[in-house]
Amino acid sequence: MPQFMDVHHGMKGITADQLMEAHSANRAIEEEEHVHFEKAWADPESGTVYCLSEAPSAEAVQRIHERTGRLVDEIHPVPLTV
Amino acid sequence: MPQFMDVHHGMKGITADQLMEAHSANRAIEEEEHVHFEKAWADPESGTVYCLSEAPSAEAVQRIHERTGRLVDEIHPVPLTV
Repeated sequence: MPQFMDVHHGMKGITADQLMEAHSANRAIEEEEHVHFEKAWADPESGTVYCLSEAPSAEAVQRIHERTGRLVDEIHPVPLTV
Repeated sequence: MPQFMDVHHGMKGITADQLMEAHSANRAIEEEEHVHFEKAWADPESGTVYCLSEAPSAEAVQRIHERTGRLVDEIHPVPLTV
C-alpha cells in the first residue's frame, strides 16, 4: 500500500491532547477509506503537523481529513523510504 | 533527545539510490554532532524529502546536512508525536 505524508500549516499552539484527538478522530473512520494513519508529528511553534499514512490514494487521505474537519495543506506520496 | 523533521525541496526526480546515498552520508558523520537520522521519505514527483532525526538542536541537524552538501529548507522541532 502506498505511503503518504500530509502536512498541515496554521496549527500554532497545538497541544499533545489536540494532536491525539485529531489522530484518534482520523483513526476512528480510516478503515472506511482503507487508510491507515501510522504516525503524526507536530511543531506547535511554527504550527506544522506531519501525518504519515498508508492509503490507496491521496484522495482517500484527503476525504478522511475532510470528514473529521481538518484541512490538509499538502499531501505527498512518499514512494521512497530509507 | 528532541526530535526534528527537516524538509528539502527541489529534489525532483530523486531516486531510491540517491536517497539512500544522502541518508548514508549523513549517518556516517552524525555522531560528531550527537545527531541520529532515523528515517527519511521522498516524493520524487514534487521533489520533497522529509528526514526525521533525534538531535540536541536544529543547528546540529543543519551542520550535518551542510557538511554532506545538502541544503535544508526547513527544520522543525517536533516535540509532539502520536
